[in-house]
Amino acid sequence: MSMTDVMAYLDAHQQEHVERVRAFVRQPSISADGTGIAAMADLVAETIRELGGQAEIVPTAGHPVVAGRLEVGAPRTLLFYGMYDVQPVEGEAWTVPPFAGEVVDLPGSGPSMVARGVFNSKGPMAGFFNVLRSYRALGQNPPVNVAFMIEGEEELGSRNLRAFVESHRERLRADAAYFAFYGQDARGISAIYLGVKGIAFMELVCRGGEWGGPQSRMIHGSNAVWIGSPAWRLLQALTSMMGRDEQILIEGFYDEVIPLDADEERLLERLAEVFDEREILSQNDVRRFKLDGHGETLLRNYLTLPTLNVDGMVSGWVGPGSKTVLPHEARARVDIRLVPRMEIERTLGRLRDHLDGLGYADIEIDLWQAYPWAHTPWRSPVVQALEGAIRDQGVEPHTWPRIAGSAPMYLFSDVLGMPFVMGGLGHGGRAHSPNEYATVEGMRLFERSVAGLLERFGKA
Amino acid sequence: MSMTDVMAYLDAHQQEHVERVRAFVRQPSISADGTGIAAMADLVAETIRELGGQAEIVPTAGHPVVAGRLEVGAPRTLLFYGMYDVQPVEGEAWTVPPFAGEVVDLPGSGPSMVARGVFNSKGPMAGFFNVLRSYRALGQNPPVNVAFMIEGEEELGSRNLRAFVESHRERLRADAAYFAFYGQDARGISAIYLGVKGIAFMELVCRGGEWGGPQSRMIHGSNAVWIGSPAWRLLQALTSMMGRDEQILIEGFYDEVIPLDADEERLLERLAEVFDEREILSQNDVRRFKLDGHGETLLRNYLTLPTLNVDGMVSGWVGPGSKTVLPHEARARVDIRLVPRMEIERTLGRLRDHLDGLGYADIEIDLWQAYPWAHTPWRSPVVQALEGAIRDQGVEPHTWPRIAGSAPMYLFSDVLGMPFVMGGLGHGGRAHSPNEYATVEGMRLFERSVAGLLERFGKA
Repeated sequence: MSMTDVMAYLDAHQQEHVERVRAFVRQPSISADGTGIAAMADLVAETIRELGGQAEIVPTAGHPVVAGRLEVGAPRTLLFYGMYDVQPVEGEAWTVPPFAGEVVDLPGSGPSMVARGVFNSKGPMAGFFNVLRSYRALGQNPPVNVAFMIEGEEELGSRNLRAFVESHRERLRADAAYFAFYGQDARGISAIYLGVKGIAFMELVCRGGEWGGPQSRMIHGSNAVWIGSPAWRLLQALTSMMGRDEQILIEGFYDEVIPLDADEERLLERLAEVFDEREILSQNDVRRFKLDGHGETLLRNYLTLPTLNVDGMVSGWVGPGSKTVLPHEARARVDIRLVPRMEIERTLGRLRDHLDGLGYADIEIDLWQAYPWAHTPWRSPVVQALEGAIRDQGVEPHTWPRIAGSAPMYLFSDVLGMPFVMGGLGHGGRAHSPNEYATVEGMRLFERSVAGLLERFGKA
Repeated sequence: MSMTDVMAYLDAHQQEHVERVRAFVRQPSISADGTGIAAMADLVAETIRELGGQAEIVPTAGHPVVAGRLEVGAPRTLLFYGMYDVQPVEGEAWTVPPFAGEVVDLPGSGPSMVARGVFNSKGPMAGFFNVLRSYRALGQNPPVNVAFMIEGEEELGSRNLRAFVESHRERLRADAAYFAFYGQDARGISAIYLGVKGIAFMELVCRGGEWGGPQSRMIHGSNAVWIGSPAWRLLQALTSMMGRDEQILIEGFYDEVIPLDADEERLLERLAEVFDEREILSQNDVRRFKLDGHGETLLRNYLTLPTLNVDGMVSGWVGPGSKTVLPHEARARVDIRLVPRMEIERTLGRLRDHLDGLGYADIEIDLWQAYPWAHTPWRSPVVQALEGAIRDQGVEPHTWPRIAGSAPMYLFSDVLGMPFVMGGLGHGGRAHSPNEYATVEGMRLFERSVAGLLERFGKA
């Protein structure tokens, strides 16, 4: 069998493969409240079994992991890492039902499926299965053995995945890991990522206490004349950490940050050639970037700067009516993104010291999740295989030293000690947002890039 | 007829009068959702008619006002201002049904009625009617004519009351206005108020726009590396207005603030003699005041300082799960309390200028409600009458130049041009809270103080 046969099969069965994607997004699986999680895990495990693999739904302290293997006697094994959970849709304004898998013609994108999870990341997962299904339909084995680790808590910060990986090293043995996504932007430029930033997600809580402020309930707002406010206190504490020039003011915060190495500088040069600032602004519906600079400067910041982001905050009365109260507590959810070689513990220690130093020892830092940054060398065979597979489709791959987002890729690089790669053809967007989408044509291209990856990695 | 007869009658008929209070609190009248509003307005109007007055339920753009007059040919007329609406009880944990009017023995307070509205302010309103009823039962006219303006939207910010007052000046004509409440604290110390602070309640809204930031939806939090955040922007704007030393940093904010005058200084001296800091701290469950100083210093701040309070704020994702987003908007509800002689328009102009001057012209100020401070001179006959009436009952009145809270008393001082007074004997508490209460003994003392007020004001 030649690659040509596989590619032809993928093209000929595109409609059927889109239906497979639809079947996945029609099964809600919201990890935040557990909706549909069990049914979705079943669907994934059953899909692996249909492909001739063995699969098991392995309980964890949270939602289970679907673990499996498809052994075909190939010399190399690829570990497919994915997630079967999605973000909530509550309170979001969708133009179609978020769990219907409707295909609509999106201006500028063409026919696209609009659904929660179709981009992040049931579409790519279903596409990966479609490729394996195609080999089987053609009476062939895929060119690599595949191990599967598909978790149900990625959107909750993969909080039980480390424990799973550490106690299931044997069933996860492989030569490299692959995280699949639709990696093309609206112009068709293809991205591959060699790493991720780390994350520490926490809630800062300020309550009335020894310093003052009401301790047990909201009180009448007129007391602001003589009673301190946890809302003002938290506001002061937060802004003490962030300059109006966007510099983070926690002492030593940037101390471990390292510059790009020689390979990364080469990658940056190539990225700058095709980098389209307007595309980033347009996708996020933003008029301008927050720091001065363009092109390479912006990209260098993107790759090398840690961030301190307010994900959410709430205090006092925000329901109907003008209720004048002095709140008894204020909360802010904050995430820090860590770049090489910032360490989580050291960074959190600096945050604690900063608050303590300003007299805010009472402000709690509740760490909800954290994991480190991760990195794979550009020259790893799995990276080269994906770059080649994309080039085979007539698309020039643009490889990023890292993405600014976070994913637990350190489990592969640091815990399991294997290289990994993140990418694939295809296009979509609006992850974590209403009207998340992926183009139908991108689904076809994605499958072709995956088939190429398997072929090339199998021979590497 | 002597005052002694009236007082004796009030004492002899206390049980019957408590039943009248109970009848009022048993009729729910929640302005927030309209429950029982119409029936309560009927009950109030019917009560005025039973006393020989005329009463009308006057529609407004919201809940109606009960307006009435009891003309007895007396030389002086007192305008009784009250409210027949109460706060909601939804979600509150009561130890008795909130609309039953049960009397229970409260530790430290003795036999007390526990019910929504018994303190704020159906108890005092019913008590006022009870006094008028007593004159009638004794075959006498009360010593003053009484005008009634009893609104059904006080708990919603009296939003249609100004329009009502301006178009019904004739039916409201009087020599002075009276706002009745149970003004004794747990120790029996009696408070009278000569004024209120003004209020401007607003929402500050920061959205993505020309300055940057996502304009239409929350975006992925990793974009914080190059996209500005409305959350940080609003935080910076807010803290730019408030020093860590609790000084408000808006230029000119304190410019119109005037010191206490000689009369107010005398009142302050007397207040400081009985002021119990621990009682304030304990009632609000607070460990310490926010500014240094005790006694007279604290009281002076209370009377003379304007405030900038955060009533509520919200941004981003605050639901379940650690959703890492960069918010597209942030909102803070803020109230400014104005002291003499701060003007609302000028103060809001300074706030606007402050934000504009720092480059925050995009941050919206949505004014939800505002009314000015109000003040009546200590030497007004109605004030002197109430002080004398309280002293007649063996209680030394403690008269405050103003309370830090806000109420639309400017309608009397500024719009109708008459003095007013706020007070009365009696004790209760937990307004706007579960287990709102008033003592039965306080109800008796309240009625005695009202009878004294009518007698003394009638002769003034």
